[in-house]
Amino acid sequence: MQKAESWLKATLDYSFNDRDLFAQALTHRSANGQSNERLEFLGDAVLDLVVSEIVFRQQPHANEGDLSRLRAALVKDKSLAQLATELGIGEFLVLGSGEKKSGGHSRASILADAVEALFGAVYLDAGFDAAYGVIEKAYGQRLHDLPDPSELRDPKTRLQEFLQARSMELPVYELVQVSGRAHKQTFEVTCIIPKVASVTTGKGSSRRSAEQKSARFMLEVLDGDHND
Amino acid sequence: MQKAESWLKATLDYSFNDRDLFAQALTHRSANGQSNERLEFLGDAVLDLVVSEIVFRQQPHANEGDLSRLRAALVKDKSLAQLATELGIGEFLVLGSGEKKSGGHSRASILADAVEALFGAVYLDAGFDAAYGVIEKAYGQRLHDLPDPSELRDPKTRLQEFLQARSMELPVYELVQVSGRAHKQTFEVTCIIPKVASVTTGKGSSRRSAEQKSARFMLEVLDGDHND
Repeated sequence: MQKAESWLKATLDYSFNDRDLFAQALTHRSANGQSNERLEFLGDAVLDLVVSEIVFRQQPHANEGDLSRLRAALVKDKSLAQLATELGIGEFLVLGSGEKKSGGHSRASILADAVEALFGAVYLDAGFDAAYGVIEKAYGQRLHDLPDPSELRDPKTRLQEFLQARSMELPVYELVQVSGRAHKQTFEVTCIIPKVASVTTGKGSSRRSAEQKSARFMLEVLDGDHND
Repeated sequence: MQKAESWLKATLDYSFNDRDLFAQALTHRSANGQSNERLEFLGDAVLDLVVSEIVFRQQPHANEGDLSRLRAALVKDKSLAQLATELGIGEFLVLGSGEKKSGGHSRASILADAVEALFGAVYLDAGFDAAYGVIEKAYGQRLHDLPDPSELRDPKTRLQEFLQARSMELPVYELVQVSGRAHKQTFEVTCIIPKVASVTTGKGSSRRSAEQKSARFMLEVLDGDHND
């Protein structure tokens, strides 16, 4: 525990008043004792609010859809696991023997959950402002290098915006084919735009994902034309 | 604005430092001026954290699944709209003329959004603790009369728990029939439990919902036996 405490002080400049909370945040459900699952539930909400406020303030003109996408990009499991790896929390996790043997210390989902649990534990230990500070420190520069919200929009939305900005007609998505057995079907959709010669085709495990792919390919086609 | 301020003071014991924030919280996107959509984005996260902490503290033994279900029940649009109606925020909303004519002042989604925006505005105006207090006051007794988390579990989960508690075999769900055209299909599923004479059937627009219904009917059958 002392090693973990030194690590926390050095990386996030935080010391727990209640050491039990810290120990619990590091305990995976595969181990004995109180696991970090309840703290993760709370930490998830703490993180959401802190990141919401930061993107809200940093993007004073973004609409709520763009704010949601920015927040989602920052708090998704993949981002959290990356953060956890950089912070190096993995080596302090308490795991059951099975998880330990199968590489649980570096499993993305376990790392992401532990980071959220840590934020939840700090919140209980010292309140919202303390958690805010720890989250800001953990994310560091990431919170200031926000991506352009438009890049996070899905391809169909981006295609629509591209066309509207140029007063072009909107695309039509046609389901061309469904193949495969129930629950393992493949959908094939074409994206057709009046007055655009190219037709693009997307395949996916749902109609929606096939449409998005066809829109992405169409954006690439139009972008190519545009750059010529 | 003065009437709205008196209402806020009387119902939630809050006065804004920054009146513009309050005005914005009350402004629907159908009206001119800055709408409450960004504040709603923030308020949604504030509400989530406050409710998370309250259910976390009130249910010290609930697992994170039950905590999530309790939170979801409290923050869902339907609950928020009910809250908004009781508080009487509707008459202070600023709507565009179309929305006004079509009864926007009492539309559930508009009311729910406005309440969230109000929580977000208080958070920006005076910080987390102030928002916590306002949310606690708005929810009132609801936060103390939490439902039994097990009641919020879905029927399939409850049926499984019921059977496991009695060391009975688990149910099998069989898809009996799919009828209707694509996108408007009806699924029919039976729930079969070895050694239970009754078989129940559920119908729904998805396989999942048909399964849940068949499980719910089976619970009713078993509960009837049980009470005999």
